[in-house]
Amino acid sequence: MVVVMTPEATDEDVARVVEKVESAGGEAFVSRGVVRTIIGLVGDVDSFHHLNLRSMAGVADVHRISDPYKLVSRQHHAGRSTVWVAGPGHSVPVGPETFTFIAGPCAVESTAQTLEAAEMARAAGATMLRGGAFKPRTSPYAFQGLGIEGLEILSAVREATGLPIVTEVVDARDVAVVAEHADMLQVGTRNMANFGLLQAVGKAGKPVLLKRGMTATVEEWLMAAEYVAQRGNLDIVLCERGIRTFEQATRNTLDISAVPVVQATSHLPVIVDPSHAAGRRDLVVPLSRAAIAVGADGVIVDVHPDPEAALCDGPQALFGADLRALAQAVRRLPPVVGRVDAATRIKAIAPSLTV
Amino acid sequence: MVVVMTPEATDEDVARVVEKVESAGGEAFVSRGVVRTIIGLVGDVDSFHHLNLRSMAGVADVHRISDPYKLVSRQHHAGRSTVWVAGPGHSVPVGPETFTFIAGPCAVESTAQTLEAAEMARAAGATMLRGGAFKPRTSPYAFQGLGIEGLEILSAVREATGLPIVTEVVDARDVAVVAEHADMLQVGTRNMANFGLLQAVGKAGKPVLLKRGMTATVEEWLMAAEYVAQRGNLDIVLCERGIRTFEQATRNTLDISAVPVVQATSHLPVIVDPSHAAGRRDLVVPLSRAAIAVGADGVIVDVHPDPEAALCDGPQALFGADLRALAQAVRRLPPVVGRVDAATRIKAIAPSLTV
Amino acid sequence: MVVVMTPEATDEDVARVVEKVESAGGEAFVSRGVVRTIIGLVGDVDSFHHLNLRSMAGVADVHRISDPYKLVSRQHHAGRSTVWVAGPGHSVPVGPETFTFIAGPCAVESTAQTLEAAEMARAAGATMLRGGAFKPRTSPYAFQGLGIEGLEILSAVREATGLPIVTEVVDARDVAVVAEHADMLQVGTRNMANFGLLQAVGKAGKPVLLKRGMTATVEEWLMAAEYVAQRGNLDIVLCERGIRTFEQATRNTLDISAVPVVQATSHLPVIVDPSHAAGRRDLVVPLSRAAIAVGADGVIVDVHPDPEAALCDGPQALFGADLRALAQAVRRLPPVVGRVDAATRIKAIAPSLTV
Amino acid sequence: MVVVMTPEATDEDVARVVEKVESAGGEAFVSRGVVRTIIGLVGDVDSFHHLNLRSMAGVADVHRISDPYKLVSRQHHAGRSTVWVAGPGHSVPVGPETFTFIAGPCAVESTAQTLEAAEMARAAGATMLRGGAFKPRTSPYAFQGLGIEGLEILSAVREATGLPIVTEVVDARDVAVVAEHADMLQVGTRNMANFGLLQAVGKAGKPVLLKRGMTATVEEWLMAAEYVAQRGNLDIVLCERGIRTFEQATRNTLDISAVPVVQATSHLPVIVDPSHAAGRRDLVVPLSRAAIAVGADGVIVDVHPDPEAALCDGPQALFGADLRALAQAVRRLPPVVGRVDAATRIKAIAPSLTV
Repeated sequence: MVVVMTPEATDEDVARVVEKVESAGGEAFVSRGVVRTIIGLVGDVDSFHHLNLRSMAGVADVHRISDPYKLVSRQHHAGRSTVWVAGPGHSVPVGPETFTFIAGPCAVESTAQTLEAAEMARAAGATMLRGGAFKPRTSPYAFQGLGIEGLEILSAVREATGLPIVTEVVDARDVAVVAEHADMLQVGTRNMANFGLLQAVGKAGKPVLLKRGMTATVEEWLMAAEYVAQRGNLDIVLCERGIRTFEQATRNTLDISAVPVVQATSHLPVIVDPSHAAGRRDLVVPLSRAAIAVGADGVIVDVHPDPEAALCDGPQALFGADLRALAQAVRRLPPVVGRVDAATRIKAIAPSLTV
Repeated sequence: MVVVMTPEATDEDVARVVEKVESAGGEAFVSRGVVRTIIGLVGDVDSFHHLNLRSMAGVADVHRISDPYKLVSRQHHAGRSTVWVAGPGHSVPVGPETFTFIAGPCAVESTAQTLEAAEMARAAGATMLRGGAFKPRTSPYAFQGLGIEGLEILSAVREATGLPIVTEVVDARDVAVVAEHADMLQVGTRNMANFGLLQAVGKAGKPVLLKRGMTATVEEWLMAAEYVAQRGNLDIVLCERGIRTFEQATRNTLDISAVPVVQATSHLPVIVDPSHAAGRRDLVVPLSRAAIAVGADGVIVDVHPDPEAALCDGPQALFGADLRALAQAVRRLPPVVGRVDAATRIKAIAPSLTV
Repeated sequence: MVVVMTPEATDEDVARVVEKVESAGGEAFVSRGVVRTIIGLVGDVDSFHHLNLRSMAGVADVHRISDPYKLVSRQHHAGRSTVWVAGPGHSVPVGPETFTFIAGPCAVESTAQTLEAAEMARAAGATMLRGGAFKPRTSPYAFQGLGIEGLEILSAVREATGLPIVTEVVDARDVAVVAEHADMLQVGTRNMANFGLLQAVGKAGKPVLLKRGMTATVEEWLMAAEYVAQRGNLDIVLCERGIRTFEQATRNTLDISAVPVVQATSHLPVIVDPSHAAGRRDLVVPLSRAAIAVGADGVIVDVHPDPEAALCDGPQALFGADLRALAQAVRRLPPVVGRVDAATRIKAIAPSLTV
Repeated sequence: MVVVMTPEATDEDVARVVEKVESAGGEAFVSRGVVRTIIGLVGDVDSFHHLNLRSMAGVADVHRISDPYKLVSRQHHAGRSTVWVAGPGHSVPVGPETFTFIAGPCAVESTAQTLEAAEMARAAGATMLRGGAFKPRTSPYAFQGLGIEGLEILSAVREATGLPIVTEVVDARDVAVVAEHADMLQVGTRNMANFGLLQAVGKAGKPVLLKRGMTATVEEWLMAAEYVAQRGNLDIVLCERGIRTFEQATRNTLDISAVPVVQATSHLPVIVDPSHAAGRRDLVVPLSRAAIAVGADGVIVDVHPDPEAALCDGPQALFGADLRALAQAVRRLPPVVGRVDAATRIKAIAPSLTV
């Protein structure tokens, strides 16, 4: 931590800062410049936060140097982690050696639609099913999801297909019921900073898919993961899904750089959602290819048997030729960047599975 | 609503769109251009949303023309509303004729600190007290607020000073207990799109202070207000508190234009929080003056008897000369823009009050 | 300047940094933390830039602490400056004691239109005329301005009204001809980082109005001013005109906080352009009031005798009741924030003038 | 084009709009809704722009439907274009069938450094050399490039290596001299909206590399290309180099989606600059892989024989193992996405070349 003094700061101001730091058990190194003095702090940085140094007389600014997160940082956990999602038929790895393909409908609308989407997903090589029962929508007049009924549909489709299920939970009060049906709990972009929800999913005993807030920095995103980890759950998969910028050609701007940025500072796996980032079907395949090539640990995409009839985000759902193109990319590209498709890995472990 | 067809759209594609709209009870007017055809839709726009027109063959884009919100819109409620917050000693108006000054500590830390801040606020002309008991913090290692104990302190200070209380609620499960102690429930910037919380405060029977999401458009903010209003509660005060931009000189960029933009489309009162927007004490007074001059219905600012010891956001809390400058601005500027200070209005109604 | 080492940096890496700094005549203070080492640098910071420290082995980051601009900084020029723009009839001050109102048409279209707009501006209390002869337009198919003919019209209107003229120059090759006709040279938002143009206007011997790039930080804006100042010209007035954000309700987001932020770090005057920020006539008066109240040194607004016929930005041009409301605000509000209207100041100096 | 009326618009307001459109030779289709009336315009859209409809009484908004650019649009030029850059030894294609690798130092510092960087680039598989002689720098105190001397060094290295040269021109007055030495003229991010410069390079008779403004929308970028094309030059290669967002982990946010977005609407080739987007060496290889996989027509990257001694952007320059990894990606990945490396294509045409 570095404290930067104002040009007008007096020697007494500097002395008071040093004294405060030392009284908290830290060390303070003073560098007097021509115009400004800076003070380097050494010791337990967390304890310095409570000193409120930025409010002291003569202090212009305080720069934090170390990462503010700990449990999700690579600093004390250098290797990258693999999260296993246990399903009815097989467990799915998400991590540095595999590439995991997750697909399904944006919203669960009916058993038939969900089952058909799941079969499409599986035929294309997906090893996990996504599908929303609770839908956070900007407009109170838009379809809000089937709720519990949607969870029951997901459970039935899970049994029928053997695919593990990831679904969103939007309210801390629903965590228990969602965790009963789902194999992985998704926290959506609008709830990334809903700290009560993060703590609740952290205690639920299931892996968590944590989407990046559409206006969150990578650091804030990792701090959100830290909230989950603090409750004892390190089975967290991060998901980049686009950030809000001035560009209007896409719904959000996919921050593809976030993948290697996260991997450089955190041991958690990170996947990409090109469907919600772009909001346009024609971009999903090229962006998925980019995600594989940049080194993401997986993708999660929307598929729908009949996008024209979809109750949510139809314009971005894949089907037909686009889905076949994605299936091909998922087979061919990961080996070129040193990974195996997760389906191949699962079959290697349990050859009898029909993934 | 306007449907824009692609240059390649066929006559059949156009006919299918027209048919779908008419089958939903709407009318469709086709304008064939040299390159593109556009179709104007007339009727119940909400029913058109479910038609999923954007997914149909030949459709390039769908433009919404009407505002998506209804209850909070000026379209059916042309005059601007006044929200009254009932307190122990007096009720406080927030609306187009007055200028309401709300102040208090960012976080409740102790009875003494809260009482002292409340006395500072009242002496400066504030008619309502702010103070956080539940604090949503980016870091799980930062002070998270005193919780229930903080609410009890606020209650005690409310009785002692006669000032009504506004405090934040961060979790739908806490709405009942917060509503027991507070006169107005605040939904913070991180929770603006927490729809379960919006619905819960909508049913709580208390006025709501709805802060803008730091990355929300004005339209999304008004949609969030619509969630509250849908539960039967129109006593909503909007609060502009800065948006996230590339500029790093201030914590957020105060979007001062949002005040007249909101007032042009919604009847709800709108106030400004310059403290959290700027994150710097030296900007709070000039930004408060700007808020008054632009036509805001009030301001909410942080004050603290000892900012160096504050557990939260000390660098932005006012005291001493800055607070006196703000008090002066709140007395002098509103009359120049055709308003009275709310304190004056309250005294006019109940001259015995010690506001 | 502070050098932050990586956690993996060796003692030799640290020693190499220290050596490099010392060989450049600086001093380096090493603070060894538990996880990281930081090195504070003291001396001539500019010479350190060329050391390329960020590329050295073991270096994680380099933080600059001092402002990178010098001539425009308050560090060595504590008082705020007043820039005087000399016109045919009177000189106009822009600075901390006055409030300067500049108005005119976005584009010069004809002598009649420009003269009429100038009379409107003067009647409303403006003491300087704006008007574009060279117009930078996003589309090559849009009206690009009258060029030299426009400058001649401005000259004629300047003689007829006595109002000094500010007009934009968009190309370094045009600086000489524009400086022949104009009293103040404007550098527009799209050219804020056109360094050749900045240097050319810096040598032209006329005051400069430097608009903020719509995506420039305050620091980059002040660096652009430094380019002008380096050529020997410190008669620079900064103009905040809105920045690009995700919000679409206004054309740009007026960053009202930039006014006090600039005033805290630079001695240059700063004014506000609410017309181009908002792009909407109905916001120009409230935003102008906000500009006065926040402490801006002036405003520059679009007026047009017949906005429906305007060739450029008609929807934001003031006339009629809106212009009268602005005139009233410019008379009444500055005294409340401790300033006089520039027109009053000019009359006090030269009572015979018909400002 | 669609005109949206306000809810308060009268029948006369509507009639006036229709009349104005018809008087300009267009057709107007009126759709009367419950709340609002909308008017669809058909005919020559460009002529409607001059009507200034947005300023008319009763008009709330005007939506453009067609693309505002023409020459660079795919609307009248469905196939994607290939631009050939002619060099001393070979010509280099940039287009849909190849993947073109351009590399070189950020700034030309000396003959030895430039030659060494060129040899590194060629050894890694690059077929064109980049290198800056005129450097636009935020700070007037930073290294501004060698100017003419830098051009002469580039010419010498061009002769020595046979590699064609792309270099930036920052001022319209320099276009002639830069065009004498360079095979391709680069317009940088800060000058994307410098319309005089765009017109000057449009007339220079050399292919143009047009970088995206760091805060330009894709539409504005294509409008800038239209300025070049209007001067008779369609040999334009677009270059995505990151946009400005709130995220601070990378210097800019690489907008990888812009590649397929551009390709869907324009026939021009589009390449990616991962070095300037990220500003961090460790991200250049993964982002280059993402660029290949998303379907970009090439990449342009910084290399430097001794990044620690670089006068400009050393922290992002590749060398050693990173450069070898990039060379490998450029050989292996393009075939997987249906392209050949441009070096292979050039050799197929002229097998004697030492590319």
